[in-house]
Amino acid sequence: MADSGSTPISDKPPIVRLDLPRTQRIDLPEAVYCQGKTVDQCLSIVTEMLEREEDAVIATRATPEQISALRELNPTDEVERTLTWQHRPPTSKRVAIVSAGTSDLPVAREAALTVAAMGHETIMVTDVGVTGLHRLIDSLPEFSKADVIIALAGMEGALPTVLAGLVGQPLIAVPTSVGYGSSFDGATALLSMMASCAPGVVVVGIDNGYGAACAAHRILAARL
Amino acid sequence: MADSGSTPISDKPPIVRLDLPRTQRIDLPEAVYCQGKTVDQCLSIVTEMLEREEDAVIATRATPEQISALRELNPTDEVERTLTWQHRPPTSKRVAIVSAGTSDLPVAREAALTVAAMGHETIMVTDVGVTGLHRLIDSLPEFSKADVIIALAGMEGALPTVLAGLVGQPLIAVPTSVGYGSSFDGATALLSMMASCAPGVVVVGIDNGYGAACAAHRILAARL
Amino acid sequence: MADSGSTPISDKPPIVRLDLPRTQRIDLPEAVYCQGKTVDQCLSIVTEMLEREEDAVIATRATPEQISALRELNPTDEVERTLTWQHRPPTSKRVAIVSAGTSDLPVAREAALTVAAMGHETIMVTDVGVTGLHRLIDSLPEFSKADVIIALAGMEGALPTVLAGLVGQPLIAVPTSVGYGSSFDGATALLSMMASCAPGVVVVGIDNGYGAACAAHRILAARL
Amino acid sequence: MADSGSTPISDKPPIVRLDLPRTQRIDLPEAVYCQGKTVDQCLSIVTEMLEREEDAVIATRATPEQISALRELNPTDEVERTLTWQHRPPTSKRVAIVSAGTSDLPVAREAALTVAAMGHETIMVTDVGVTGLHRLIDSLPEFSKADVIIALAGMEGALPTVLAGLVGQPLIAVPTSVGYGSSFDGATALLSMMASCAPGVVVVGIDNGYGAACAAHRILAARL
Amino acid sequence: MADSGSTPISDKPPIVRLDLPRTQRIDLPEAVYCQGKTVDQCLSIVTEMLEREEDAVIATRATPEQISALRELNPTDEVERTLTWQHRPPTSKRVAIVSAGTSDLPVAREAALTVAAMGHETIMVTDVGVTGLHRLIDSLPEFSKADVIIALAGMEGALPTVLAGLVGQPLIAVPTSVGYGSSFDGATALLSMMASCAPGVVVVGIDNGYGAACAAHRILAARL
Amino acid sequence: MADSGSTPISDKPPIVRLDLPRTQRIDLPEAVYCQGKTVDQCLSIVTEMLEREEDAVIATRATPEQISALRELNPTDEVERTLTWQHRPPTSKRVAIVSAGTSDLPVAREAALTVAAMGHETIMVTDVGVTGLHRLIDSLPEFSKADVIIALAGMEGALPTVLAGLVGQPLIAVPTSVGYGSSFDGATALLSMMASCAPGVVVVGIDNGYGAACAAHRILAARL
Amino acid sequence: MADSGSTPISDKPPIVRLDLPRTQRIDLPEAVYCQGKTVDQCLSIVTEMLEREEDAVIATRATPEQISALRELNPTDEVERTLTWQHRPPTSKRVAIVSAGTSDLPVAREAALTVAAMGHETIMVTDVGVTGLHRLIDSLPEFSKADVIIALAGMEGALPTVLAGLVGQPLIAVPTSVGYGSSFDGATALLSMMASCAPGVVVVGIDNGYGAACAAHRILAARL
Amino acid sequence: MADSGSTPISDKPPIVRLDLPRTQRIDLPEAVYCQGKTVDQCLSIVTEMLEREEDAVIATRATPEQISALRELNPTDEVERTLTWQHRPPTSKRVAIVSAGTSDLPVAREAALTVAAMGHETIMVTDVGVTGLHRLIDSLPEFSKADVIIALAGMEGALPTVLAGLVGQPLIAVPTSVGYGSSFDGATALLSMMASCAPGVVVVGIDNGYGAACAAHRILAARL
Repeated sequence: MADSGSTPISDKPPIVRLDLPRTQRIDLPEAVYCQGKTVDQCLSIVTEMLEREEDAVIATRATPEQISALRELNPTDEVERTLTWQHRPPTSKRVAIVSAGTSDLPVAREAALTVAAMGHETIMVTDVGVTGLHRLIDSLPEFSKADVIIALAGMEGALPTVLAGLVGQPLIAVPTSVGYGSSFDGATALLSMMASCAPGVVVVGIDNGYGAACAAHRILAARL
Repeated sequence: MADSGSTPISDKPPIVRLDLPRTQRIDLPEAVYCQGKTVDQCLSIVTEMLEREEDAVIATRATPEQISALRELNPTDEVERTLTWQHRPPTSKRVAIVSAGTSDLPVAREAALTVAAMGHETIMVTDVGVTGLHRLIDSLPEFSKADVIIALAGMEGALPTVLAGLVGQPLIAVPTSVGYGSSFDGATALLSMMASCAPGVVVVGIDNGYGAACAAHRILAARL
Repeated sequence: MADSGSTPISDKPPIVRLDLPRTQRIDLPEAVYCQGKTVDQCLSIVTEMLEREEDAVIATRATPEQISALRELNPTDEVERTLTWQHRPPTSKRVAIVSAGTSDLPVAREAALTVAAMGHETIMVTDVGVTGLHRLIDSLPEFSKADVIIALAGMEGALPTVLAGLVGQPLIAVPTSVGYGSSFDGATALLSMMASCAPGVVVVGIDNGYGAACAAHRILAARL
Repeated sequence: MADSGSTPISDKPPIVRLDLPRTQRIDLPEAVYCQGKTVDQCLSIVTEMLEREEDAVIATRATPEQISALRELNPTDEVERTLTWQHRPPTSKRVAIVSAGTSDLPVAREAALTVAAMGHETIMVTDVGVTGLHRLIDSLPEFSKADVIIALAGMEGALPTVLAGLVGQPLIAVPTSVGYGSSFDGATALLSMMASCAPGVVVVGIDNGYGAACAAHRILAARL
Repeated sequence: MADSGSTPISDKPPIVRLDLPRTQRIDLPEAVYCQGKTVDQCLSIVTEMLEREEDAVIATRATPEQISALRELNPTDEVERTLTWQHRPPTSKRVAIVSAGTSDLPVAREAALTVAAMGHETIMVTDVGVTGLHRLIDSLPEFSKADVIIALAGMEGALPTVLAGLVGQPLIAVPTSVGYGSSFDGATALLSMMASCAPGVVVVGIDNGYGAACAAHRILAARL
Repeated sequence: MADSGSTPISDKPPIVRLDLPRTQRIDLPEAVYCQGKTVDQCLSIVTEMLEREEDAVIATRATPEQISALRELNPTDEVERTLTWQHRPPTSKRVAIVSAGTSDLPVAREAALTVAAMGHETIMVTDVGVTGLHRLIDSLPEFSKADVIIALAGMEGALPTVLAGLVGQPLIAVPTSVGYGSSFDGATALLSMMASCAPGVVVVGIDNGYGAACAAHRILAARL
Repeated sequence: MADSGSTPISDKPPIVRLDLPRTQRIDLPEAVYCQGKTVDQCLSIVTEMLEREEDAVIATRATPEQISALRELNPTDEVERTLTWQHRPPTSKRVAIVSAGTSDLPVAREAALTVAAMGHETIMVTDVGVTGLHRLIDSLPEFSKADVIIALAGMEGALPTVLAGLVGQPLIAVPTSVGYGSSFDGATALLSMMASCAPGVVVVGIDNGYGAACAAHRILAARL
Repeated sequence: MADSGSTPISDKPPIVRLDLPRTQRIDLPEAVYCQGKTVDQCLSIVTEMLEREEDAVIATRATPEQISALRELNPTDEVERTLTWQHRPPTSKRVAIVSAGTSDLPVAREAALTVAAMGHETIMVTDVGVTGLHRLIDSLPEFSKADVIIALAGMEGALPTVLAGLVGQPLIAVPTSVGYGSSFDGATALLSMMASCAPGVVVVGIDNGYGAACAAHRILAARL
């Protein structure tokens, strides 16, 4: 019944609906996107997921304050802006996560932790920027162990393009906001990866390590 | 008389003109856009409107400091960045306000409070992102109670497009700045909604919950 | 059964699905978007819709060649790039369609013909650009007859903003690609309308007269 | 020896190097990107590849004039802008190629023909735009047959986002330049797909059906 | 003599050259653009100009800290981010400075103070946004007193376009960064003013009140 | 009376309103913007203006076909895309129109012809690009004869910035679409002129020679 | 003397000034930028330069029609859109011009012909896209012969970045408009090159082979 | 061995590879890009480079906190955001570094310190903005001493274009983020420099003083 004049909007609770059957539907757990949420919202959502779900729980883009609070819920693992609980049992699949330098690490590790929560092994390869090609070429044996490769790059974003000419595995490119000026907060890397001359490079959003990991899981879980 | 050399500009009061007859002309009250104003300016403008006008008074985009000060003026209701006074009497009209998650709430509630100040009832529906379609489809009975629907979305902004294929009511889309990286502060959602393949989706500016509510009121007040 | 090696892709017919129950669901007929289709595709789709549906049929963005062919199907009415068949019975609702000049006419008339196909009356008002305000103010009596107003503008797109301060009806803004240079094919007008300081302006895509008409119909059909 | 003054640049043949071992290295054949090449260049490159390589040969983005000439080389199959020769032997893998309408067909069929040249089966699903959700949901049984899904969309590009919430397979999104005005030649769809709220959507460049097929092959060929 | 190895760059003073004859050349004094300068740099440059020049001295875009320090140099006048010294003698010319609301005041007053330093009188008109046209029309008598008009607007930037249809004087438009979301920090207003359908609107950069005042002075000083 | 079902939209004449008192209001004649109009529309509008108005008549952005037809109406003068009739009587004012090269001539001459139609004298100065500064400096005596200067530039658009440091007159900058690639159809020149470090440069839209001339006339007609 | 009313603008010859001493000043000849010029203008400018100058003459961006006409003037050499006359005497310097494929050839050869007109030798290396790294690495001996390297790339523009990690010579990057969709007419390559992680890559405008050659000449002519 | 379930990602050290042979390969030392690194990472990387390499060490884009810590490592020289150790022995080459004002100094001095670390002499020229051309022209004797010129400019970025018409040396342009509003954080200057009408201007990324210095070194080290 309409009574907007009497019930303040500030007292009106929004109707919330959880996507609990997501795991059954697409084999990926619902993640908690912390950005723009209060600490209390993050805590209560993760608590509810821990209580009710049996799948892995992942919280991404958490602020230092949110992380401090979420630590009380005993996460399985935690890196810069990401926390996980209840990892899935290990599989025998491996994902290589490649980046040009240490500035990409927060995004690389968001991807790695999500991959790990799905039960897959990660191989981290850093400092293989295309300016020192020999480092990339020397790393080929490590890439050969991987079933899927996630390649991160900021600035001009050339790393996935070069790598895609060297290896035949599925290759997921992640543009990062690393760089300044002409990097335009990752937009340059994003465009560069989308226009790649290398065949079969696929791209996720800027700094979206979580999305890259989910894409990797879709591939690893495929019934091929 | 010209005497710029003697009267300092800092002492020259600007000539101010109020748009008092706005309610009579277009049946919408003038709102106080707080962003870029001093606390004192906000206080004196709201005070004057409370004293002189008989219509609802709405203050939007207020900072925490402005909100603290404006609370002294006994607002009728208050949410994150919005305060209202002197709501219009209730009508029998209903506006559904739909969003994908809790991060959109400040904009959703700016819209809701403005709708309420106009006297209309609001139906808040949250957590119906298009990734869990069943939640959206399960909510259709609630939408069917609404005369107008306001649909908010950040990131890729697909919610209004999908919803417009399911319901026939007027549908006002609000792109929000929720998301990071490729969301480009709401620009992606804005473009996506403007290019919607669904027939009859209309769009207001990024994060403009107030504008969406005014558009809803124009529809509800139409003499149909 | 998989036999890609033997069945040429060029012989593989795509699986086509029509959205026939659209009218029942959202009270809007499926329109034929001609751009990018062959003449034969346009002809066969319109023919099928004429045979099977009982709702109005609308073809938009047709090329001169497509129009010549579609004329054989005896359209009810036809303007620059739009044709219609089987108009709905007349209602008593009126839509004013306002534009600044004759260059906006193809988009204005796409909107008008779609409105007419839905059974509503249209009031066309041209040459009321904001540079000659008196013309706009002199036209207010005509706008007062309308239940909904569609306002088109290219270049700086100021017309809907000014009009929204003068009338209280629902106001749908359509940015057009009229202009050159700094008009950037309608992007300037789109941005200007999205950032309008006037309360309750809603916007559809560039040159999307059809979408504006559908939005108008959603409002006119609302059970208010 | 330096003699630029005597040897005209117009007589100086550029040094050309073929990437013949690409198949051995990354299991993808070098494709002929016809855009910007002369008919003679296209003919001689394809001829050489037919003579020397044993892998599939693919020519993309060919103009009508180039296609007429290339037909003399007896292609295995041919669609709008794509021709293929020497398809690989059939595998038992299937790729679903999904699009919203017939305007996306040239890009969809570029993807399909490339997939077929690699030996995989294709399942074409058209007319499943998100405005008529039931069509998409009715098609789920067909998607369940596919190992990988390629989803094309122009305009607001919402199709891959919605689909990613319904199926768990690897999902490759292709923004197309279908649409006008606010579609900005595919840029809107590209941004929308990059900012998708659905987990694990990966994206290739605008209209890049060939690239999507190569990405699908990387997945199908993975030793999982 | 080259000795970079021995003389540290940090000890190498840059060669500085003042543009002292600017007033003689173009009748405009060199202003001190404070943004990006240290407090000491601002102080020493203004001090030197006060000692050596006989023209007005203007400091723009000063931070609160810079303003505190510059106050010690006894400015003739000071507003939000601008200070002046040594105003030119009064002329009989008048510049109207028009804006839609109080949020534009810092830019409006930067323009006003610069105009005053040149010796011209200013007429400030505020709260004449195009949504309440009657306020603008009621102000026409005041505009008729002005030799030049400077019109500021943020958001959709329509004010100069409307005003240019009502008055015949030189009209300088200043886009401001007032607004949020779709205002894109003034870019929307800038584009809108550049694409204005009104004849003879000229535009300066976003928030550039100083530049608008200089343009006004060029006009007022013209030997007509 | 509403009868959309019976009266075809194609037979419904739009309501047209002329802005005849524009000359009295702002001392600028209404110009005919030919782009997007049919030849017949151009002819009938110019004919009507010639019959009814006593002010100058200006047609801009005319196509070759439109120009052929309009020549039948005996224009007073004609350049690339512009025609004029009924010039105002000569004044003693002079406008210098400056450009870097011959590619800017169509825009430069649109400005010149409009200036001439208002009765002012024009001084054309070409080939003074900033790469050959001596040519610009050698031309200073010619600029000194002008009351107002219009400076056109494509590519990087530096000419007005450099000129504004050399002369004190009102200076109107016109970005042109001359150039390719990084010139981005005039957007680069537009941005460069808007961000000019030179004091008092004002800018009109890309290729808008007509607008620059109107701005010059506003200045020349000012009662200073 | 002011007489705009009597002397038609169409009869008023623009004042033209040639930059004849350019060679003496900066050791680069003035080139004829043909785009936007008439055939007659091109012919007369080249004729005059041939008669009066003793330096090389270069015409760029010529249309097929302009080229046909200019051939009458007996060019020394000619490629796609470029013609030259009066080459400078040979030097012993070499410029390598590197590109990924044949689509870049028109820009590569514009650079090559300009380099040759300056008297330097060119080394053309094609088909060394970064997807087949071995081709690039195999070409290193050829690059080692060059004093300066010009590297062209369209699409993602990664070639100069990779090359800059392999060679120490001056490296001039040229983004080309080769590619479609996400290449955005060369803007993607331009951004990618500007944000390059490789040290010391310098960039010229999109498709600006002439500019790259001039930059190379500045380096080769340096008194080192 | 796969054990992602047991080894936390937070304990997994990334595999790091240094590009030690960079100096041998391209004669440029690897620099430490501090942005996005922790203080400890900066310290350990610089320490390792000081211990192991014999080439110059350069740290760029350091924050105040990073600078405080790095000072403990006894840098050879230090300016705003840049520190260097172990300069190469002096050469007899000179680089002029030119900027329009003091706001460009942090970028100018990043370039200067990098040049100095390579052993070359620097000539700093400030306050030569194109608005006071005489200052630039008066400085020509100083430029004549330089082997290479680096020209920085923010806002409209015209300085390199003007300078390139006056001097024949290699000229490297650096767009800076100096300015506000229409300067768009350096994007305007970047575009302006890329579209320069002056022959042979080359450009590096926004604020990339380090890159400009490396480009200068490539030229100075060339075996000409």
